[in-house]
Amino acid sequence: MTLPEVPNYSKLEKYFAQINNLSNLLSIISWDYAAFMPPLAAPSRQAEIGELSSIIHKMSNSPEIEELIVKAELESAELDEWQLANIREIKRNFDQAISVSEELHQKYTNASNECEFIWRNARANNDYKGLKPYFKEVINLTREVAASKADYFKTSKYDALINIYQPGSNSKSIRAVYDTLKAELPALLQRITDKQSGEKILPLNEHVSVAQQKAIGKKIMEMMGFDFGMGRLDESTHPFCGGTSSDVRMTTRYDESNFITGLMGVIHETGHGLYEMNLPAKYKNQPVGKARGMAFHESQSLIMEMQATISHEFMEFLSRLLKNEFGFKGKEYEAENLFKVVTVVKPGFIRVDADEVTYPLHVILRFEMEEALINGEIDIDDLPEIWNNKMESYLGIRPTNYAQGCLQDIHWPSGSFGYFPSYTDGAIIASQLMAKANSSSCNIKESLRTGSFKELNEFLNKNLRNFGSLKTSGDLLLAATGNSEIQPGIFLNYLSDKYL
Amino acid sequence: MTLPEVPNYSKLEKYFAQINNLSNLLSIISWDYAAFMPPLAAPSRQAEIGELSSIIHKMSNSPEIEELIVKAELESAELDEWQLANIREIKRNFDQAISVSEELHQKYTNASNECEFIWRNARANNDYKGLKPYFKEVINLTREVAASKADYFKTSKYDALINIYQPGSNSKSIRAVYDTLKAELPALLQRITDKQSGEKILPLNEHVSVAQQKAIGKKIMEMMGFDFGMGRLDESTHPFCGGTSSDVRMTTRYDESNFITGLMGVIHETGHGLYEMNLPAKYKNQPVGKARGMAFHESQSLIMEMQATISHEFMEFLSRLLKNEFGFKGKEYEAENLFKVVTVVKPGFIRVDADEVTYPLHVILRFEMEEALINGEIDIDDLPEIWNNKMESYLGIRPTNYAQGCLQDIHWPSGSFGYFPSYTDGAIIASQLMAKANSSSCNIKESLRTGSFKELNEFLNKNLRNFGSLKTSGDLLLAATGNSEIQPGIFLNYLSDKYL
Repeated sequence: MTLPEVPNYSKLEKYFAQINNLSNLLSIISWDYAAFMPPLAAPSRQAEIGELSSIIHKMSNSPEIEELIVKAELESAELDEWQLANIREIKRNFDQAISVSEELHQKYTNASNECEFIWRNARANNDYKGLKPYFKEVINLTREVAASKADYFKTSKYDALINIYQPGSNSKSIRAVYDTLKAELPALLQRITDKQSGEKILPLNEHVSVAQQKAIGKKIMEMMGFDFGMGRLDESTHPFCGGTSSDVRMTTRYDESNFITGLMGVIHETGHGLYEMNLPAKYKNQPVGKARGMAFHESQSLIMEMQATISHEFMEFLSRLLKNEFGFKGKEYEAENLFKVVTVVKPGFIRVDADEVTYPLHVILRFEMEEALINGEIDIDDLPEIWNNKMESYLGIRPTNYAQGCLQDIHWPSGSFGYFPSYTDGAIIASQLMAKANSSSCNIKESLRTGSFKELNEFLNKNLRNFGSLKTSGDLLLAATGNSEIQPGIFLNYLSDKYL
Repeated sequence: MTLPEVPNYSKLEKYFAQINNLSNLLSIISWDYAAFMPPLAAPSRQAEIGELSSIIHKMSNSPEIEELIVKAELESAELDEWQLANIREIKRNFDQAISVSEELHQKYTNASNECEFIWRNARANNDYKGLKPYFKEVINLTREVAASKADYFKTSKYDALINIYQPGSNSKSIRAVYDTLKAELPALLQRITDKQSGEKILPLNEHVSVAQQKAIGKKIMEMMGFDFGMGRLDESTHPFCGGTSSDVRMTTRYDESNFITGLMGVIHETGHGLYEMNLPAKYKNQPVGKARGMAFHESQSLIMEMQATISHEFMEFLSRLLKNEFGFKGKEYEAENLFKVVTVVKPGFIRVDADEVTYPLHVILRFEMEEALINGEIDIDDLPEIWNNKMESYLGIRPTNYAQGCLQDIHWPSGSFGYFPSYTDGAIIASQLMAKANSSSCNIKESLRTGSFKELNEFLNKNLRNFGSLKTSGDLLLAATGNSEIQPGIFLNYLSDKYL
């Protein structure tokens, strides 16, 4: 038996494999919490999750790690680029963990889990008042977490939160991108809705059973490369993609009078799943083997949903599939009409139902509000009114109840502030990726006509997914798209080309 | 704020609430492992489960507990009977944990999880040879565990294993009960099969959809008192009842050409679920609030399945329900015929499909074999032959393949030796409980005619379920049945009354 040449680095890897084991269990349990758990189990499950989360947090900021990092760095001459990047990511993990005290972490986790659970009913019952005491607690604790992290990282409070989800990002650069979008989108939106108002769309009126929808969804997931040996598709009220990189847990919901929206949701989540499944196998249990933040994650769902499948090319394939394999009949299932159905642009209240043209305005509203919320500039009592005012100003419509407004999203009630920007960053990255992919091969778009995702997957695996967190965010964007910056111009051009 | 008067006992409770939180997560994850996990996730999940299991094991035998137990006992004048019993159960937990080294525990857990997973395919493919290397490892490690526990508890090796599942039991007393059964059952079996050979049974030929079966099952579960706010019913290849006392996870499988067997399975698992749901709410997170071993657990499923529902009274209700609410038609759904269908007695190869008359012989076979296996008296290569010989001797039939024989059960491949006796002990306890319940109220049987389980549940809650582990096994049996011994005679009388 030979001893490892890098004993301290090896210890560090082993330690993080242990942390990863527990984090993976927490992911599966969280999937269960959101999708399967019976309601009265919530209080005990919250305590159980709090317990495990606290153990993971304690392990993640143990002084042993700090010491091992210093010693492992002395072995750096013997380490390859993956191992060196792993140390960098381990440091990032350690910093994230130690920047919040154990006590505060636990209070924040417990309050978030409790508030998220209360929110489910509050949203259903349009009951902002009932949520408020729990929500207030979460906001206060998030402010404390932000202050503690800001102090540790020497950043602003909001930037400290953004960095949890998007390493290397900050509100200044996000604002610059959003300024461009705010300047261009309203006029573009007007031109698109003007154009569409003259178009005739045949509605998809057919009732499609849940069983049929499942069969269509699974068929397309398989074509997209989703491996059911390491993942599942289940039902839940709020569709999401959770689980681990070896066990992807996707959920969706089925509406028998509107199958196409559900199908697009499945395709979106499959994009997330494919990122996880194609992370570097050798490092799946190490920080360097994880996805490079939530903006890149969203880019992987949106390149599948918006770029690849909501396209003339894929609709040709889908139309044939529905007719030949699933017995759909009628002109409304022809490719051109399907494309029209899934590209209707119309301002609406609900972010998750928004088209890709209005979506960024939903995000900008939240970005501006959460920065102010974290800085204590918005009082919880004024929040609904501020929301509605912004909604009216950006999208020209005003919610008439809380469920249409500030109660719609799970993020804030569950303590996730700083997450929203990654949706729009992801949409822009997706457009940059597809532009690059198309410029590197003219076959990608064409192959979608036959339902083949092989070339697109190869491009994404090689240039993005397989890197895990080997590169920093900017370097990864550079490697994958040829530019290290998020470029709203490419996104706006893409929208013009597609919708005008 | 007043300080607790019993600071050490309070610390002990808090510590065990933490252990309980983690154990509950492990239960939910294990349910997922058996029922939901996609197959390629197995290796990573095994490592993840091993990690958490190891943390629980470490916490359970920490020197801190031993010290706290001693100190808490000094506070005993201030403690009530529940708290005193909790200390006794905490000691039992601690002894169980410390009687096996951390290293052996981890090896045993990992090998068992791996072997259980291999077994799934081995059984499907009748592949004993493929299982053997994994199985051998599990048997060797179980022998080591048994030896370590035997040394600690000063018992025989097999008794040390039995005690994991049935506190207070041992192979000598089990053997005495089984001697009675072995002496009486063969003749009884002969008389019953003779009698039944002259009876005419109308088969239930109707195809019943999975959706319909789910509706019937859930209806009856609700009538039985199962609270879907704290439990679920899902599908899996191997039905079981898992989860926690706040979140009962039942699974079943549906055969569209044989709905009644599935329904009886649902009723059986519901019995387990009702025990969990009705454990003492105040102590659910403490050792004293847990079920009193697996024999009592089985008694709760069998009193529902065999005693309450496989009865003339309940079949009257079921017949009406099927006809009036679910549109079943035909003479075969009349109560008397339904009763005949579910009380067919016939020797068969598969334990889980066995009737209640032949079932004990399946258990006796396993009991005798596992004692010899643990003592090293059976070699793994001879195991199938010995199994088949015993099968022929006890039930007059000889398996022609492994799947009909020694590959059929999950227990041994998953490292559970010493568990089987609790099935038959449970069946006997169920008969004792029902005899006592009927003698204390003449309404219990009658109320089943209307599908009401209220009186039976009240009896079981008051005399058994609500006690948790407050009493020792013998005292609990005494309180619930008026006798502290397991009495095979009552069981044999019950069988005669029912089948002859």
